[in-house]
Amino acid sequence: MKEITIDLNSDIGESFGLYTIGQDELVLDYITSANIACGYHAGDHNVMNHTVKMAIEKGVAIGAHPGLPDLIGFGRRKMEVTREDVYNMVIYQVSSLQGFVHIHGGKLNHVKPHGALFNMAAKDPVTAQAIASAVADVDPSLVLYGLAGSELIRAGRESGLTVAEEIFADRTYQPDGTLTPRTDQDAVIHDADKAKRRVLRMVTEGIVKAVDGTEIPINADTLCVHGDEQQALLFVQELKQMLLENGVSVKAVDRL
Amino acid sequence: MKEITIDLNSDIGESFGLYTIGQDELVLDYITSANIACGYHAGDHNVMNHTVKMAIEKGVAIGAHPGLPDLIGFGRRKMEVTREDVYNMVIYQVSSLQGFVHIHGGKLNHVKPHGALFNMAAKDPVTAQAIASAVADVDPSLVLYGLAGSELIRAGRESGLTVAEEIFADRTYQPDGTLTPRTDQDAVIHDADKAKRRVLRMVTEGIVKAVDGTEIPINADTLCVHGDEQQALLFVQELKQMLLENGVSVKAVDRL
Amino acid sequence: MKEITIDLNSDIGESFGLYTIGQDELVLDYITSANIACGYHAGDHNVMNHTVKMAIEKGVAIGAHPGLPDLIGFGRRKMEVTREDVYNMVIYQVSSLQGFVHIHGGKLNHVKPHGALFNMAAKDPVTAQAIASAVADVDPSLVLYGLAGSELIRAGRESGLTVAEEIFADRTYQPDGTLTPRTDQDAVIHDADKAKRRVLRMVTEGIVKAVDGTEIPINADTLCVHGDEQQALLFVQELKQMLLENGVSVKAVDRL
Amino acid sequence: MKEITIDLNSDIGESFGLYTIGQDELVLDYITSANIACGYHAGDHNVMNHTVKMAIEKGVAIGAHPGLPDLIGFGRRKMEVTREDVYNMVIYQVSSLQGFVHIHGGKLNHVKPHGALFNMAAKDPVTAQAIASAVADVDPSLVLYGLAGSELIRAGRESGLTVAEEIFADRTYQPDGTLTPRTDQDAVIHDADKAKRRVLRMVTEGIVKAVDGTEIPINADTLCVHGDEQQALLFVQELKQMLLENGVSVKAVDRL
Repeated sequence: MKEITIDLNSDIGESFGLYTIGQDELVLDYITSANIACGYHAGDHNVMNHTVKMAIEKGVAIGAHPGLPDLIGFGRRKMEVTREDVYNMVIYQVSSLQGFVHIHGGKLNHVKPHGALFNMAAKDPVTAQAIASAVADVDPSLVLYGLAGSELIRAGRESGLTVAEEIFADRTYQPDGTLTPRTDQDAVIHDADKAKRRVLRMVTEGIVKAVDGTEIPINADTLCVHGDEQQALLFVQELKQMLLENGVSVKAVDRL
Repeated sequence: MKEITIDLNSDIGESFGLYTIGQDELVLDYITSANIACGYHAGDHNVMNHTVKMAIEKGVAIGAHPGLPDLIGFGRRKMEVTREDVYNMVIYQVSSLQGFVHIHGGKLNHVKPHGALFNMAAKDPVTAQAIASAVADVDPSLVLYGLAGSELIRAGRESGLTVAEEIFADRTYQPDGTLTPRTDQDAVIHDADKAKRRVLRMVTEGIVKAVDGTEIPINADTLCVHGDEQQALLFVQELKQMLLENGVSVKAVDRL
Repeated sequence: MKEITIDLNSDIGESFGLYTIGQDELVLDYITSANIACGYHAGDHNVMNHTVKMAIEKGVAIGAHPGLPDLIGFGRRKMEVTREDVYNMVIYQVSSLQGFVHIHGGKLNHVKPHGALFNMAAKDPVTAQAIASAVADVDPSLVLYGLAGSELIRAGRESGLTVAEEIFADRTYQPDGTLTPRTDQDAVIHDADKAKRRVLRMVTEGIVKAVDGTEIPINADTLCVHGDEQQALLFVQELKQMLLENGVSVKAVDRL
Repeated sequence: MKEITIDLNSDIGESFGLYTIGQDELVLDYITSANIACGYHAGDHNVMNHTVKMAIEKGVAIGAHPGLPDLIGFGRRKMEVTREDVYNMVIYQVSSLQGFVHIHGGKLNHVKPHGALFNMAAKDPVTAQAIASAVADVDPSLVLYGLAGSELIRAGRESGLTVAEEIFADRTYQPDGTLTPRTDQDAVIHDADKAKRRVLRMVTEGIVKAVDGTEIPINADTLCVHGDEQQALLFVQELKQMLLENGVSVKAVDRL
C-alpha cells in the first residue's frame, strides 16, 4: 500500500528591518516546509539568517521564496518583466538564501515564487520557464513549488525538476482546474470544516468538486497554510490532526 | 628562484538598471581579478549575470565585491553597522554572486569589500572579523582581499583564509604603513612614471618609501587599478608592460 | 491673426547618486519646458536641486515628472497600481519638486507623468483621473501634459486643468489618433527631414497623416524632444530653426 | 501671570507598505503635535496621506519628520552625509509632507528630524545648520524641534526660526545639560512617578537635577512621548492629567 502524504508549507521570514510580520516561530511548529523571503518583496539579510536558523533547528524543510523587487507592494503587484529579468532575479534570490542555509549546515530543499510572481508563473509560460530554468541551473535537485496544474508545474517538469503541486484549503476551483478569481463571490470557503473535508479528499482521492459541481482531478503534494493570525494557526493544527487521523503522513516533499 | 607575481584587480559590474558606469569589457582585457558588485552599493541581478559571463569568457578571476546598502551613496559613506549586520550582508551578497558564477560553470575566487566597508574593515577589528568570518563560513578556500597591513588582512589570517594584500599605485604611505588620508596635500601621486616605479619596488623588493622618506616593508599581492577613463586604462597597460619586462608575472591570487 | 506656438519639452534630471545620464545642461539651451524626475523612477534630492537651479537660470519652464517607484526599471515597466496609490505617488513627487522650485524663487509650471505611468494614463481612465485630480489638488493652475487625444488629456480637462497635448516627431499614428505600437514595423520615422515636415504640419495645420494614408486632426501643444545623444540634440536645433523660419513661436505652455 | 505650557509630541506615520508599526490613531488622542515620517527612514506616500488626514481631523499640529535614507535601519544609524546632502534631503521630505497637508486644507506646523539625523544635529553644527536653513528656506514660519540646548536649537535661532526645545521624561541629564548616553547604567529612569515629577519640574521651574545632583536650567517647550505600547500610552495619559492638575496648559508650539 502506497503511503499517502501531504506537505504543509507556509511563507515566513517576511519581516524587514524594524518591521515585524507574522509569528514565524509559532508557525514553524506546525509546518513541514518553510518558504523564506529573500529580500526583494520582503525579508532582509538579518531576518533571513535568523529564520533559516530557526527552521533548521525545528527540522522544517527550507525553500527560497523569491519575489518581484517591490517592497512597498510586498511583491503582490504584477509588473512587466522580461524573461531574462525573471531568470536573473530568481538566480540572485535563491543563491542568497542558499548561502544562509549553507552556513547553518543545512541544504536548500525547494523554491516557491511569491505573490505576483507565483500568479504570473501559473498562467504565463515564459515566466514559468524562466523560473524553472533558473532553479534547475542553481541546483537541479531542488523541488519547484507551483499551483497545481499550472504552467509553472509544467515548466518544472520540462526542466527535469521534481515539482510539488500546491492546493488551497479555502479556495474554490473552476471546472478547468484553475482557482476561482478572488473577485468572484464564491471564491473563498469560509466554513473551516468544509475546507478540511475538501483538503482530505484532494489529498486521499485526488479529487476536488468544482464550483459547478463537477468532480475534477487534482494533484495535492503540498498545502499552503498561514499563521499570521491566531485563528489561522488553530486551523492548521486541526487540519493536521484530521489528516493524521485519516492515515495521511504530513511531511515535506524531498529534493532529489 | 621564487617567481615574483602581482595580481591586477579592478572593481567592475557597477552599472544599475539603465545606468551605465565604467568600461567593463575593456578593463577585463587588462586585469587578472575582477571584483563584481552584488546589488547593495551598485550592480543588479542582470548586470551581475552579464559581468560574470564576460569575466569567465576572458579568463579573469572573479571576486564578490560586497558593499553597504547605500545605492544613492555608492557604498562610499560610512554607516553605523553592527557586527551581525556586516556578517549577514556579506553572506547575502557573496552568496548571490556565487550563484551567477555557478550557473556559468565558474568558481568564485575571492572577496573584496567595497568603499566604506573596505575602509572600515581596514581600521576596525570588529568589522574586519565580521567580514572574514562571513567569507570563511561561505567557503574557507576563498581569498580575502584587504588593504596591505590592515585589520582585515589580520582578521583574514586569523580565520584561516588566504589573504591578498592590496597596494595602490597613486597613493602615498605614512611611516606606519597606512595610506596618507586623501585630505592631506601629498596623498596622491600624480606623476605616472613615479607611480610605476613605486609599484615595481613594492612588488619586487617589498619596500615603499613613506612620506617622511623612511623605507617601510609592504606586502604587495594585488594592485587596484581603474578603467573608467581612457587615461587610467593606458596607465594599466603601461604598468603591466613594465612589470612583465622586469620579470614580474601578472596573475591572479589563486584560491585554495 | 492668431499666433501659432509650440512648446519643446524634454525629460531631464534623471541622474541618480554617482550615476549620470543625459546632457541636461546642453539640452536646457534648446527646450522651453523641462520635466524633472522626482526620485521614484530616477533622480534624487541632490540632482533635483541642481537641475531645478539650472532650469531657472536658463529660463526654462519647470515641470514635475513623477514616475512609478521602480528605479531598477527606470519607471518604464507597467505595474498594477490602485487609483489611490497613483494619486498619492503623484502628490508626493510633485510636492517634493515644488519644494526645490520654491527655494530657488521659481514657480512650478506643469506635470508630465513618466514612462509606464504616462502610457497607462493615456489609455486607462482610472489612472488618468488619479493623476489629474492629484495635480489639481496640489495646484489647479498647473498645466497637465499628456499624449495628444489621450485619456489623460480628457481627465485633465474634466479636472479643470489647462492641458498640453503632446506630439512626437519620430512616431507614426493610427487612423484613430493613437501612436503605432513600437512593436510594429512602421512605428518609427527614421528620416529626419520627413519627421520635421510632419511636425510642422501638425503644429501649423493640426493635421497628421496616419499609417493608412488618412489625414487626421491632432492638437499639438508640445513636442517631446531628447538630448541624450549628439544627433538628437542636432535634430532639436534644426527643428527649432525650421519652426521659427515658418513663423511658429517656440515657447512654454503657461500655467494659469 | 504668564501661562505655563508644554507640547506633547510623538513620532507617527512610520508604517510602510504592508508593514504596520505603532498605534497612530490612539496616540493622536493624547498628543498635541505629530511628527510624520516622510518616506526615507519610514512611511510611504499612502501612509503619509492617511496619517495627515487623521491628524487634521483630530486637531493635532502636524510636523514633518525627515530622516536619513535608510529604511532597513529605520534611520537610526549614523551615516556620513555632506552638508549639501542633508539640506537637500530635508527640502525633499518636508516639501513632500507639505503636499499632503495642503491637499487636506491644513498647514504644516513644524519639523523634527528623526533618529540618527536628530542626534547628529544635536552635536554637529554643520548638520544642524543644514537642517535649519532647509527649514527656513521651505517656510520661515515653521517651528524647528530639537534637543533642548542642542546645536540644532542654536542653528534654528540663528536662522530666525521659532524653536521648540525638547525634553525627555525617562532620560537623565549630565551636568552640562546633555543626555546621559544610553550605554551608561543610569541613563534611563524606570520609575514612572519619578519621571512625571521630573517633567513637572522641568516644565514649571525650568530646572532638572543632573546625575551628579546639581540642578541645571533647561528649556522645556515640548516633550517626546511614545505610544507604541499600552504602558507607554497609559503613561502619557497620566502625565497629561498631572500636568493639567498643576495648571500647565498642554498645547502645540504654534508656528509664526
